[in-house]
Amino acid sequence: MSDRIKRLAVIGVGLIGGSLALALRKAGACGEVVGCGRSRENLERAVALGVIDRFEQEPGRAVAGADMVVLGVPLGAMEAVMGRIASSLAADAVVTDVGSAKMAVADAVRRTLGGHLARFVPGHPIAGTERSGVEAAFASLFEGCSVILTPLPETEAGALARVGAMWRACGAEVVEMDIAHHDQVLAATSHLPHLLAYTLVDTLARMDDSEEIFQYAAGGFRDFTRIASSDPVMWRDICLANREAIGEMLARFSNALQDLAEAVQGGDGETLLSLFHRAKAVRDRQIKGRTLSAED
Amino acid sequence: MSDRIKRLAVIGVGLIGGSLALALRKAGACGEVVGCGRSRENLERAVALGVIDRFEQEPGRAVAGADMVVLGVPLGAMEAVMGRIASSLAADAVVTDVGSAKMAVADAVRRTLGGHLARFVPGHPIAGTERSGVEAAFASLFEGCSVILTPLPETEAGALARVGAMWRACGAEVVEMDIAHHDQVLAATSHLPHLLAYTLVDTLARMDDSEEIFQYAAGGFRDFTRIASSDPVMWRDICLANREAIGEMLARFSNALQDLAEAVQGGDGETLLSLFHRAKAVRDRQIKGRTLSAED
Repeated sequence: MSDRIKRLAVIGVGLIGGSLALALRKAGACGEVVGCGRSRENLERAVALGVIDRFEQEPGRAVAGADMVVLGVPLGAMEAVMGRIASSLAADAVVTDVGSAKMAVADAVRRTLGGHLARFVPGHPIAGTERSGVEAAFASLFEGCSVILTPLPETEAGALARVGAMWRACGAEVVEMDIAHHDQVLAATSHLPHLLAYTLVDTLARMDDSEEIFQYAAGGFRDFTRIASSDPVMWRDICLANREAIGEMLARFSNALQDLAEAVQGGDGETLLSLFHRAKAVRDRQIKGRTLSAED
Repeated sequence: MSDRIKRLAVIGVGLIGGSLALALRKAGACGEVVGCGRSRENLERAVALGVIDRFEQEPGRAVAGADMVVLGVPLGAMEAVMGRIASSLAADAVVTDVGSAKMAVADAVRRTLGGHLARFVPGHPIAGTERSGVEAAFASLFEGCSVILTPLPETEAGALARVGAMWRACGAEVVEMDIAHHDQVLAATSHLPHLLAYTLVDTLARMDDSEEIFQYAAGGFRDFTRIASSDPVMWRDICLANREAIGEMLARFSNALQDLAEAVQGGDGETLLSLFHRAKAVRDRQIKGRTLSAED
C-alpha cells in the first residue's frame, strides 16, 4: 500500500508522539520508527518500551531518510525544531505536527520550512490525558477520537491524504478545518477548561486553610481538576500561541461568571435555576450523543 | 447495641438518603426504614429496590415512632419539612440532615424545631455523584468519605454520638466542624467548582457554533463538566443558602482569572508557567495523598 510509512520520525516522544508510534506499529502501518528528543533517558525508555526502534538527539539526523515526520514537541519548541530539520528533510517527506494551536504552527512553518509548504500538514489529535512522557503512551489513545487537519493553502492533496491515512490507521476519525476556526473551537473546548482548572486549584492553594480545604475535596472536585495536572510548559506555550482566541473565551466566560455572581448576590433563584437547567440539558445531551464512542 | 437504629425515617429518598438507607441495612445497623417524599413513583421504586420498607407521603406521619430522622431534601425544602415534622417527632428522636450549607439549616431549625435543638445534629456527607433520585443510590457511596457534623451549641453529646455512629456504620469518617467554617470550605471545594462547570457549559452552549464546539470536546472537557449534570434545584438552593461564602469565592476566583487573562494578553510566559507549575504540584500532591482512600 502506498499509504504505508517506511520510516517514521517522531520528534518529541511523549504521550502523543509515543502513542502514535505504538498505534501505527500495532496496525502494521509503518516500518522503522526513529525517535528524537532532548531527554536521552526518555528516549532510552521509549526503545525499551518498544515505542521506537532507535533514536537520534539531533532533529536533523532523526528526519534523514524518513518519509513521514511528526512534530510532537510543545508549541514553544516547534519553530526551533523546524529550523533544525529544514535542510535534512527528504524532498518527498511529509511533515505534520500535533500542536493545539494551528495559526502559530502555520506561521512558524512559513518562516522555517518555506520550501516544504506543499508537504506540510498541520494537524491536531483531540486526545490526551493529563499525563505526559513516553511512559504515559498507549496504542489505543486515538481510537474513536477526532483528528483535525488544517491544511495550508499550499498543502498538496497527496500529503493531506497520507497524514489522514496515518491517523485513520490509529482508529481516529479525520476532519478538516480552517486554521482560525480550529483555534477558536479549541480555545472553547480545551484551552479555557484547562485554564479554569489551573486557576481553581491555584486559588484554593493560596487560601490560608488550603491544606484543610483540599482534605474535603470530593470526587467531583478531583474530576474537575484532573486537567490541572497537565504539563505546565505545554500549556504555557498553548496560551502564548493562541492568545487571541483564548483571550476572547476568557472574556466571554468572565462576563458569564459576573452575571452568575450577581444572581447569587441578589438571591435570584429563577435566573440560577434556568442557567443550571440549560447547562444540565446540554451536558446530558452531549454525553448521550457520545455513548457509542470509544472514549466513554 | 444502643447505637442501632430501630426505625429510620428518611425524608427525601434520593441519591444520598437512599444510599444511606442501603448502607445501614447492609451493615445491619437499622431496623425498619420509612421513606417519605413528594413523588409516589420514586417511593414505589425505593420499595421495589429494597431501599425502604414502606413509605408515607406526609412527613409528620413518616417520622412517627422513628428514633432516627434524616432530612435528605434540597435546602429550599428543608424548613417546610421541619415545620411539618415538629409536632410528630418522638421526644427522644435524633434528627439530622445532609444539606451542603449548614448555616441556613441551623437557622431553619431554630425557627421550626426550637423544642428539639438538643437532638438536632446538622450533618453533611462529602459524597455524591452527578446523578440524582433513588435509582442512583448505592450502598458503598459513603465508604472512605468524610462526613462533617456541625453541632449546634444546644446539641447533646448523645445525639451527636448517635449520628456519628450511623455514618461510621456506612464506612465514613466523621469529623466535627464549626458551621461557618464548613460553609466556607464547601464553597471553595464544591460550590465554586459546580458553578464554574455550569457556567462553562452554558457559555459554550450560547455560542453560535455550539453544536460543532461540543463535537470536539474531548475526555478532559467531559470530566471537567460532569458536575454540570447535577440537579439544578439542589444547586439553586445551595446558591441561595450559602450565598455569602459563595460570593466571596466567586470574587476570589474572578480576580485570579483576571490576573491570568492579563498574563495571556501580555504574553507573560513566566507568570503563566509558575501558575501552572504551582497548580500541578498541588493537584498531584492531592491525588497522591489520597491513593489509599476508597474513592480513587
